[in-house]
Formats: sequence, structure tokens, C-alpha cells
Amino acid sequence: MRVVDLIVKKRNGLALTGEEIAALIRGYTAGNVTDYQMAAFCMAVYFQGMDLEETSHLTMTMANSGDTVDLSEIPGIKVDKHSTGGVGDTVSLILGPLVAAAGVPVAKMSGRGLGHTGGTIDKLESIPGFTATLGREEFIKQVNNLHLAVVGQSGNLVPADKKLYALRDVTGTVDSLPLIASSIMSKKIAAGCQAMVLDVKAGSGAFMKNVNDSIKLAETMVSIGKKVGRETVAVVSQMDEPLGNAIGNALEVEEAILTLQGHRPGPLRDLSLLLGAYMLKLGKKVNTLEEGHELLTKLLDSGEVLQKLAQMIEAQGGNPEVINDLSLLPQARWKKEITSWKDGYVKIKDAQNLGLAAMLLGAGRETKESTIDLAVGLKLHQKTGAQVKKGQPLVTLYYNDEDKIPGVLKIIKESLTITEKRIASLPLIHEVITCQGRENPGKLFTLNEHFV
Amino acid sequence: MRVVDLIVKKRNGLALTGEEIAALIRGYTAGNVTDYQMAAFCMAVYFQGMDLEETSHLTMTMANSGDTVDLSEIPGIKVDKHSTGGVGDTVSLILGPLVAAAGVPVAKMSGRGLGHTGGTIDKLESIPGFTATLGREEFIKQVNNLHLAVVGQSGNLVPADKKLYALRDVTGTVDSLPLIASSIMSKKIAAGCQAMVLDVKAGSGAFMKNVNDSIKLAETMVSIGKKVGRETVAVVSQMDEPLGNAIGNALEVEEAILTLQGHRPGPLRDLSLLLGAYMLKLGKKVNTLEEGHELLTKLLDSGEVLQKLAQMIEAQGGNPEVINDLSLLPQARWKKEITSWKDGYVKIKDAQNLGLAAMLLGAGRETKESTIDLAVGLKLHQKTGAQVKKGQPLVTLYYNDEDKIPGVLKIIKESLTITEKRIASLPLIHEVITCQGRENPGKLFTLNEHFV
Repeated sequence: MRVVDLIVKKRNGLALTGEEIAALIRGYTAGNVTDYQMAAFCMAVYFQGMDLEETSHLTMTMANSGDTVDLSEIPGIKVDKHSTGGVGDTVSLILGPLVAAAGVPVAKMSGRGLGHTGGTIDKLESIPGFTATLGREEFIKQVNNLHLAVVGQSGNLVPADKKLYALRDVTGTVDSLPLIASSIMSKKIAAGCQAMVLDVKAGSGAFMKNVNDSIKLAETMVSIGKKVGRETVAVVSQMDEPLGNAIGNALEVEEAILTLQGHRPGPLRDLSLLLGAYMLKLGKKVNTLEEGHELLTKLLDSGEVLQKLAQMIEAQGGNPEVINDLSLLPQARWKKEITSWKDGYVKIKDAQNLGLAAMLLGAGRETKESTIDLAVGLKLHQKTGAQVKKGQPLVTLYYNDEDKIPGVLKIIKESLTITEKRIASLPLIHEVITCQGRENPGKLFTLNEHFV
Repeated sequence: MRVVDLIVKKRNGLALTGEEIAALIRGYTAGNVTDYQMAAFCMAVYFQGMDLEETSHLTMTMANSGDTVDLSEIPGIKVDKHSTGGVGDTVSLILGPLVAAAGVPVAKMSGRGLGHTGGTIDKLESIPGFTATLGREEFIKQVNNLHLAVVGQSGNLVPADKKLYALRDVTGTVDSLPLIASSIMSKKIAAGCQAMVLDVKAGSGAFMKNVNDSIKLAETMVSIGKKVGRETVAVVSQMDEPLGNAIGNALEVEEAILTLQGHRPGPLRDLSLLLGAYMLKLGKKVNTLEEGHELLTKLLDSGEVLQKLAQMIEAQGGNPEVINDLSLLPQARWKKEITSWKDGYVKIKDAQNLGLAAMLLGAGRETKESTIDLAVGLKLHQKTGAQVKKGQPLVTLYYNDEDKIPGVLKIIKESLTITEKRIASLPLIHEVITCQGRENPGKLFTLNEHFV
């Protein structure tokens, strides 16, 4: 089997066998298949696609390309959640304690990553004393005690995907559905999860701008999950405006705590409850989505979820007092309010740009080497559809470096506008895909008010 | 300008500017653009193509990527011929003396190459004493004296194409029309020619099996030629059977001499006269194709062309007596005749395989390092459509290594068959493309008997 023949086979629109895909991916990981052959192959996949059989083989070959996490010492079905990434998305900080409070084990392995803000680990590290460095035994013991632990990635997980993604990034082959889907799924499978709830974002602040593309990606991942024996639900959610109001590391922790205190209704809480309800269902904790949603709402409103977060913080060396005293979080030196310049309705034009503004203030990483300022970022006081008066606050910036302000102000002014015509607020959920097909959870609870 | 942006631009079906193509190709030649980015780019070109503007820019950037040959000290229009490569194609050996005898300068730079037999240089070296190693001054002086010299490639011509071709070969991106066309044209332009006659082969013995693909390639190259100021004519000729009867180095020299002696009517002579007539027209030696054809036929039949060959051989250190005494050429130790096993009509099923048989006997190079046996090869006594009796000779093998015979016999028996039903002989010319469009030269002279 010559590599060039496999490239030509894909180029000509034929499906590769499982053995052929395995040879290619293993050879690439081992350094026997060259970067240039893999680049040509990825471009051929971009144009010719891959069928479900191929994509599933690719997923499993990648998942098994390095170390894998064994969570078998934790009883119960290990369900994980993954988001394709958006702006102001603090769901993980809420969802972990939420699901754990209901008794479903959450053994979360999380990264730091690049982007507008740090990853879940960075955010949690803004809590004084908190550490995400746990040994394997410690990690498992904590999940078995509290149903909840969050640990930084260790070991050589999915080296095939690391190498492939770096190559795709510089060869114009990122935007390929089977390559994106297998990349996401392989990482979750290697991390030991048995079922998955995926939050697939669509809109100006997401990797996929277009709703139909996001639905296709969601369907592909759910099909892969079914094929490889990991039940998967994908929620396609709106990312034309930030999900929460905060963008920044400590600011998002603050927003998560406020949400768990019950002070923050809105899309961040709604989406967390929906994703959590699906996790409970996949974890066989409940039989129906309604049941799961009801249980989680009750736990949240009773303060039990907030206590669960405090337990995890304490177990991982952090100061649990933070749930009662937000001033324990890192504070930026200065803040600056941007107010509305006229009466009208808010329209967010570009969510990604709002994230970029936070990154410029120092909240995110541009390259792996960048350092993060955990205190800085911004709060959005109004979202699309809100009626505002001239002089009313729109955005507050939290910053430590005044030199960044002119550039950030420019970006923010390009990212939102005030219209005279009344405009509708944005729906939160576009679609839900389960192994049984499309599902509309909107009829079941308050989320339906967001539906188009 | 980031390379990945150029890849994505092409991937998305947009045309690159001349500056973008130049940056990409120059960067690649200099080693600043990586192999993996160029491989992804080539695959994107495979799927999205390139328009004439892009292909012309690519051609000229490659042509100027290294040394170029300056033939300005030779008066007259320098016209060159290029063949896309076929089996039993001895045209160059005939065409050079033919056109030179008519007074058009032939300053031919030729390679050794890989394939069924050696290149023109290898074939000529089967003449005792002949050398293709001439200094620049010597080469030009000889062309100005005799109108004819053949020299081996020297200098660093078209390094961009060398590097790109090696990459395409292992990344499944050889079969791309703009990449093939620019590769051929850039080499000819770098070698100093001002006008070109291209022999584009189509059929089982050619790189392009399909006539329509060959016509498209011909049209693309003629359009490039027009665009970059090198008038070009492309003859699309049949390669479903070998062009001449001999396959092998010395055997092809023998066939060329026999043709110039006037003893060999047939497609090899016909195609040489047609290509030559176009070269005379492009070289402004004649006004019409008919005039050129008439002049060349007269020169050939008078023996002047054979004398021209002898002059070149002598000028380049070879023994000119070879034109009268073919036994001066290297002779194989043994020969073996394959005869027809029944009465019927010959049908050649695979010309490439007949070439492969000659290569296995030692006539060609499989890799750059292979050595050639100039004496060996085969002669085909009958071609498609010929009526034969049982026992009549079909093929004679000339060989020095008996161990090769069983394998070669097997290949030859798979390459031709005897049918009971009468079948037609194959047309020689499929199409002629000039800068003015398609042209049918078949009406003009005896070639029309070959037309479908």
C-alpha cells in the first residue's frame, strides 16, 4: 500500500477502508508518512469528503494514537460535554457542579487553549489557591467522593490529532467536516468518556458562522458517536452574540457564581440546564429530558449546586469563600464604561470581535507562549434586541494596561450598533440532534421563548 | 501575503494574481514555502484548476526560476518540438536533420529521462564516437554552420519545475492540466525556443490515455504559447500502438536511418513530415503547410536529410559511416522471433506494455540510476489491423540477458492479440490545434488516409 495510491483513491472520490485509514494515520503519527503527503490527502478530503464509515475509522484510529484515559474505577456512565467554542461561554463552570450535584460523575479533563479568554483551567485558576494538577489516583478519588473534578490534560493524548491539526492550520484544510468531527470526537473518546453532549455553536462568534454548516457538523458527530458506541446528543446553539455577559477569566467565574446563586436568568443558565438535562439522560440518571431539567432546576435554585462548586474548589486547594465573596477574585486596576450614544435598540454585529477586544485587553492567548491577565476583560450590559436610552451603559471594560484602550474602543464600536427600528432578541437554540434524529426540546420548558 | 491564504484562495475557486503565483513559486524554489503547503496548493489546483492568465504566469515564473538559454547568436526563429512521450517514438532523430536541411536552425537541448527507452541523447550515443557534451560556443557555432546540433542539458534549468514535479509525483497531483501544461512549456521556454510544435500523444502508450484529455492539454499549451509570445502548434497524435516499429535505442537509430534512406513509409515518416512542415511554417521558412510539406518530402527523398544527419554525427565526433552501414550500431547477442499462433488480424491492446517489455530487456531506465543496454529492444513487424497468417513473424526480441525472456514473452502476449474479425488500422492524427484554432491538415496530403 503506497501512500500516493491512497491519496489518489480519495482524490478520485473513492472511500478508503479502515485498514487504509489506520495505515495512513499511524504512519503519519510515527513519522513514516510525510507532512506533504498528509497535506495533499487532507485537501483531497476537503473536496471529496468522507463517508460515515471512513470518518468513524478516522476517529477511532486517532483516539487510539496515544495514551488513553481509563475511568473504569469510577462507577456510572461517564458523560462529558464539549463546546465547539464561543465568546462568553462559561457553561463548563456551571455544568460541572450542576450535573455532579445530581449524582452523575463529572471527570473533566480540560485544556488551556488559544482564544478570546483562557480555557476552563485558566478560568478556575483565577480562584485563589486552586490547582488543576492532580495525580491520577487523586483525580479518581475526588470524582468518587464529590462526583466532580477538573484536571489539566496530561499524558500524550491523541498525538495524531495534534500533529494533523497543526498541519491543517497552515495548509488551508481546517474547514473540512469529517476532519473537524473526527478531531473533536477522538479527543473526547481518548479522554475516557462513554457518552457525550456537544454544544455546537453557530454564528459570528463561532468557528462555524452558518447554522446549516453547524447542523451538518452536529449530525456528523452524533452519527460517529452512534457508530463507535458512544451515545451523543448535539445542541446547535446561537453564537451571534456572547452567551453570557462577561468575557474574561475571573469575570466569567464571577458570572458563573452569580448564575449558581440564582441571580442571573438568561441564556447562560438556560443552555446549562438544557445540556445538563441531556447529560443526566445519557447518564441514565433520569428517563426523560423534562425530568432531568426539573431536577437540575430544583438543585440550582436550592443552592446545592453552588455548594458543589465550593466543595470542588476546596478539594482542589482553592478558597471556597469565593462563592460568597467575589472580591477574592483578581480585580483589574481600572474600569471604563461605554454608554449608548443615542436612544434605540442594541444590535451586536460581531461577537468574535467582542472576544477579540477582551483578548487585546490581555484575557486570552494569541499564541501558546502568550501569558494571560486573569483579571481583565469586559462585561456586556445589553444584548441584541434590548431597548436603551442615550447615556445608558452598554459595555464596561476591566483593564490593567491603558495603552490598549484606544484600539479596544475602536473594535467595540465596530462590533455593536444602536438601531432606531425595534429588533427581536436572538433565539438560543437552533436545533438538537440525538441518535434518534432531530428533537425540539423547546416545547418542554422555558427555552421555547427563545425559539424563532 | 501568507501562504495559507493563497492556498485557501485557490481552494475556494478564486484566481491568483501574477504576483501571488510568483511569490508562491519563487518562495518554494528558495525553500521558504514548505513542501506541505505546496502539496496542499497543488491538490487545490487539481480540483479548482487555473485560468489561462494564472497558467501563463505559472509558466513564466517557472521558466525564469533558474538558468535560461540564450540563443540570440543564432540568426532566425528558433523553433523546437516537444513530445509528451510515447512508445517507439523516434521522431526527434528524423525531425532534426529534416528541418535543418530546409535551413531552419535546430538547437536542440535534450535529456536522458526515464522510460521504455533512453532519451534522444541516449539513442544518439549508440552511434560510435558520438558525444552530446558540447560547450556553449561550440554548440552555437555548430548550429550556425549546419543548422543542427543536439546537446545534453546543462546548467540549472527550471529548478522550480524539478522540485514541483518531484512533489507532485508522490502527492497524487500529477494529473492536473494547468500543472502539466506549465511544466512542459516552462522547460521549452527556458531552453530558449521562440516557437514550438508539440506532439501530444493520446492512447494506451501515452501519459494521457484519453483523446479528449489530450486535446484539452494541447489547447491549454497553445493558449499559453500565444499568451507568452511563443507561437505554438499542437498535433494530437494516436499512441494506441507504437509510432514506429522499433523500441530500443540502437534499434530506433536504425529505424530513423532507414526512414531517411526512404525505405520506410508509414506513420513515423508521416508524423515527422507533418511536424516538420509546421516547424518550417513557424520558422517563417514557408508560407503554407503544403509548401513546407512539399519541400521536406523533396529533401527527404533526395537523400539530403540523410546527409544532414551524417554531418551532425561527424561534427559531434561520431562515425558518419553509420548511415550506410547499420552494423556499426551496437548489436544484441541474441534474437528471438515471436510468430502468430493463428490466422487473423493483429490487434495491439496495450502499447505501454510493449514499451515495458523493451525496458525489461534493458532498453530503458526505471530509476535515474539504472544503466541502459543500447543494443536491446524489440521490433514489431505488424501493427493493429494487419492481416497475418499462422507462423508469420509478429515481434522480434533483441537481447543480451536470457533470464528476462520468460517475463517479456508473457507481457508481449498480453499486449497483442489476433482476432478473426477484420479490424481497421488506427488513424495517426486526432487533431491539430494552432493559435488560430483547430485545423485539419488531413485534407492537404497523404495523411488523410489515417483519419477516422
